Amino acid sequence: MTHTSGEFELIDWIRQRAGRGGANVAIGIGDDAAALSIGDDEELLVATDTLLEGVHFDRSTALPREIGRKAAAVNVSDLAAMAARPIAVVCGLTLTKGLAGEFVRELMAGMIQLAESQGASLVGGDVTSWDGPLAVNVTAVGVCPKGKAVRRSGAHPGDAILVTGPLGGSLGSGRHYWFQPRVTEALALVEAADVHAMIDLSDGLAADLGHVCDESGCGATLVAEGIPIHEDVGDADRLSHALGDGEDFELLFTVDPADAERLLADPPAGLTLFRVGETTDEPGLRIIDANGNSKPLDRLGWSHDL
Amino acid sequence: MTHTSGEFELIDWIRQRAGRGGANVAIGIGDDAAALSIGDDEELLVATDTLLEGVHFDRSTALPREIGRKAAAVNVSDLAAMAARPIAVVCGLTLTKGLAGEFVRELMAGMIQLAESQGASLVGGDVTSWDGPLAVNVTAVGVCPKGKAVRRSGAHPGDAILVTGPLGGSLGSGRHYWFQPRVTEALALVEAADVHAMIDLSDGLAADLGHVCDESGCGATLVAEGIPIHEDVGDADRLSHALGDGEDFELLFTVDPADAERLLADPPAGLTLFRVGETTDEPGLRIIDANGNSKPLDRLGWSHDL
Repeated sequence: MTHTSGEFELIDWIRQRAGRGGANVAIGIGDDAAALSIGDDEELLVATDTLLEGVHFDRSTALPREIGRKAAAVNVSDLAAMAARPIAVVCGLTLTKGLAGEFVRELMAGMIQLAESQGASLVGGDVTSWDGPLAVNVTAVGVCPKGKAVRRSGAHPGDAILVTGPLGGSLGSGRHYWFQPRVTEALALVEAADVHAMIDLSDGLAADLGHVCDESGCGATLVAEGIPIHEDVGDADRLSHALGDGEDFELLFTVDPADAERLLADPPAGLTLFRVGETTDEPGLRIIDANGNSKPLDRLGWSHDL
Repeated sequence: MTHTSGEFELIDWIRQRAGRGGANVAIGIGDDAAALSIGDDEELLVATDTLLEGVHFDRSTALPREIGRKAAAVNVSDLAAMAARPIAVVCGLTLTKGLAGEFVRELMAGMIQLAESQGASLVGGDVTSWDGPLAVNVTAVGVCPKGKAVRRSGAHPGDAILVTGPLGGSLGSGRHYWFQPRVTEALALVEAADVHAMIDLSDGLAADLGHVCDESGCGATLVAEGIPIHEDVGDADRLSHALGDGEDFELLFTVDPADAERLLADPPAGLTLFRVGETTDEPGLRIIDANGNSKPLDRLGWSHDL
């Protein structure tokens, strides 16, 4: 694409900051495309997400570093959900004209730092500018052993449903800028057990469990008392926040009940696991409340009388 | 990321339209990430570009199908510039709220059609919406034999510089929506000759040749009479248009002079080649005018007294 001279200057800065890249990087920033090499027994995973000013971040309150960090983290989280190891990210940066160079460099530094902390190199991208708001697209590339990516569609009825951490309140507390993508956790899980299905909790527990059920052709019943509520959640409607807020970026996965018991009794290194329910033959989502009553659960995380 | 229900509906439509994907696609649309498999002797190429309303397309005049087509084509063109074969694209679609569903489906149909015409499948993406203008990011993934990607940095002083077609006038005529990415041509070229350096002409002949020279540590002299001017260019400043307009998306490449003569005398199937100059030890760009005088050439394609 055509670029302005300011864009070229920025690209030079990014190129220096990003460096040569990791072992998988054959060609990094500065060419028409980046080149990556992967192992003979590996396949490639690709995820893309765009963060928009006023939708996914607020430029008046978020630090530029937080915006860049989040743009990389949400994509790395998608790779974690497939049990893939991140190797590279590329970035489509759409700048508001007149945005300070320091702001943009801080944003990119946040992105590069998060990527590198997860083993991935920034290997390319595109910088454009317009009169519109700031938009940051990241595409993340990862690898996993051939045929071993964990899909949303692998859940069996009767599976135990587990999550890797407490839920709710992420948007209110600003945790959505600083969450840790669960890459290490995902790799430890697939090492320790036969994980049938997995997803990262971006839309919210109810909605994302709904995606797993849709793809797997099953339903699910949550148990209210088993759902871990994050300390970021206030005093009102606590369960609804855990079910519906989204942007927790914890992993939700399903395994055989026996595997669940084993994992809960002796979690792989560093993992905090919570059993939140089970999948069912019957389609649709239900929740068992504190009194033991089963009720339909809305995908927005809302149920009458919870 | 969190999504609206309209976004989920659109994703379902896209998923149906995109289908199962080609031979390299292990997991397509509908999971947290797409999975691709590549050959043991191949490496992976990744390119990303964002098209912005009011910058790279005009929604009041362009068909939605043209916008989607161009978003895929500019990225496929970047893969062609590395002599890679496209296998997949993912899309980050940022919609203006209230945009008609039919508009968006037409846009995606244009993108999918261009990708498929070049052997690539749409394997994933992200749909978001806001009050801002329309932005379309595409990341394209391709493969080439390991270590065989053609870089910008491989030009030697004394190389012949060739281009694959006439230049200029693309933005005025609308050709930038409908250009054919030179994938077949790039693959035929690396089959037929030892291509030292290659780039696709997006910024314009002078600017993009400048990129090749920067990366290769050389300079270049163009010969005005050798530069093919597109019939889209009007009567005024014809050479300046060919040098500076950009968005031609023809390939520029360098080879040994002997290879250039061979290629020009007997072009590989379907190729139209023009010799436009040669690379030099001396840094900087120059142009030899119709009277045989050598003058410095600005990167914007502008030279005094041309």
